[in-house]
Amino acid sequence: MADFSLMAIDIPATPPAVLCFGAGDATAGSGLAADILTLASMGCHPLPVHTAVLLRDTRSVDEVWAQDAEIVVAQARTILEDIPVAAFKLGFCGSVENLAAIAEILSDYPDLALIVEPALYACGDLGEAGEEMSAALADLILPQTTLLVLGRHELCRLVGVACSDGEHDETELPAVDDALAQVLAGGTEYILLTGGSEHGPQVVNSLIGQAGSVRTDAWPRLGGRFLGAGTTLAAAAAAALAHGMDLPEAVREAQEFTQQALRHAYRPGMGLALPDRFFWARGKGDADE
Amino acid sequence: MADFSLMAIDIPATPPAVLCFGAGDATAGSGLAADILTLASMGCHPLPVHTAVLLRDTRSVDEVWAQDAEIVVAQARTILEDIPVAAFKLGFCGSVENLAAIAEILSDYPDLALIVEPALYACGDLGEAGEEMSAALADLILPQTTLLVLGRHELCRLVGVACSDGEHDETELPAVDDALAQVLAGGTEYILLTGGSEHGPQVVNSLIGQAGSVRTDAWPRLGGRFLGAGTTLAAAAAAALAHGMDLPEAVREAQEFTQQALRHAYRPGMGLALPDRFFWARGKGDADE
Repeated sequence: MADFSLMAIDIPATPPAVLCFGAGDATAGSGLAADILTLASMGCHPLPVHTAVLLRDTRSVDEVWAQDAEIVVAQARTILEDIPVAAFKLGFCGSVENLAAIAEILSDYPDLALIVEPALYACGDLGEAGEEMSAALADLILPQTTLLVLGRHELCRLVGVACSDGEHDETELPAVDDALAQVLAGGTEYILLTGGSEHGPQVVNSLIGQAGSVRTDAWPRLGGRFLGAGTTLAAAAAAALAHGMDLPEAVREAQEFTQQALRHAYRPGMGLALPDRFFWARGKGDADE
Repeated sequence: MADFSLMAIDIPATPPAVLCFGAGDATAGSGLAADILTLASMGCHPLPVHTAVLLRDTRSVDEVWAQDAEIVVAQARTILEDIPVAAFKLGFCGSVENLAAIAEILSDYPDLALIVEPALYACGDLGEAGEEMSAALADLILPQTTLLVLGRHELCRLVGVACSDGEHDETELPAVDDALAQVLAGGTEYILLTGGSEHGPQVVNSLIGQAGSVRTDAWPRLGGRFLGAGTTLAAAAAAALAHGMDLPEAVREAQEFTQQALRHAYRPGMGLALPDRFFWARGKGDADE
């Protein structure tokens, strides 16, 4: 396992800054708080732009309130005029209006890496509005995306193809392949297809680029269910890219970080366990492998 | 100097949780992001309840948008029903309505420590609304407050007494003493009167309780101007209390943490320097004293 102690990293005087678009989640399991923790743990300075409030506990999302697009834009533009940004990370954005406004901002920074975690779970009970957000994400954000991090079901939902809810079924592999091809054809550079929601003794994550499969990593599947595994992976990849790693290496580093954070997850409430993004600071990690 | 490495602390399986009421600040210099960083750095789990958006860069606050009180209450109540909380920390709350709603929630948890950073700087350009918020804070929140962290000017503003803007003037000491007495008589248990905005080679911080002066600590005054020094101090005190320290010890620990974070501050943008709440993780701190 890699050494995550920041002491091992040659830290510049000012840590690289990652601007995150995301929702407030008072559990700190997902959303902006989760990304702030992951980015700080990986030696970056977080710049959190508030897009929505997720009303939730550690079990489930009860309600969602979007921030006005005007307020989202003002936050981001004000920061971007003041602070040099090394990468963008996008999570739940709250509304189609917000996604459109954010897409326009991102288009002014085509050279910066954009890591996207679709966070479609937050659209779960939004009905038609959720479907419209999913479509806006696909149309406006994915063409600008450097790395899209998501599971099979989210991928199918994002491109609007049918996908069974049960075991990974051999017969639907063509559907998944079609969905991958469709996203890549739309301009997304890389997709990290995660296996966290599948079954079997291992979690298999596949990195696919424009030229095909780049790398596949398998991890022991951990017991328990987690809140915020996907956003940990996406934010950790953003951090590694902001530190200057190349993309396949950043994806590997992010997986190692996430696996450790999940191994040391804790349950602050009555629901899901939360990844411990500071496992290494609590003397966990390598020592107890 | 104390050893801030979390490895030195005996961490329970689930870190103590601190619920913060505060504003989103995309610089992460102040507001919820700053408190998340401080709390995590001191081994706590942050529970950030979003009360407002501060539109700001590293120089100044441009605008403030309050969250609806209904949304603030829903976030806090949902978390409090799910997750045991060890302490509360309160920063900028956005509106009188929010302060009233939060005061009612806090009154249901009279045994938990409440650490208050008034964040009146965010009321700066709000005119009458700012004065009303200051009055609501004094009337509704301070009577429930365990530890109030603020400077002389903020104290005078909070209780509505005149206070010169210049050098600490001997002739106005009675005004400051009156203000302290007034706040303590209103029910606040302790006040940490900070000297960061004063002059002279040392920053002198005084902890005053119901029985009078408890402790006074002097620190070398650092060059430069900082964004978020006060909230670092308040959140660090909340973290230390959540770990079970007694109050004078927690206040000492919080000052040591803040002094180190300020010594290693960095300037991500064109304005003020931000405390490095993870100085110890970057191999800074004790080693380069």
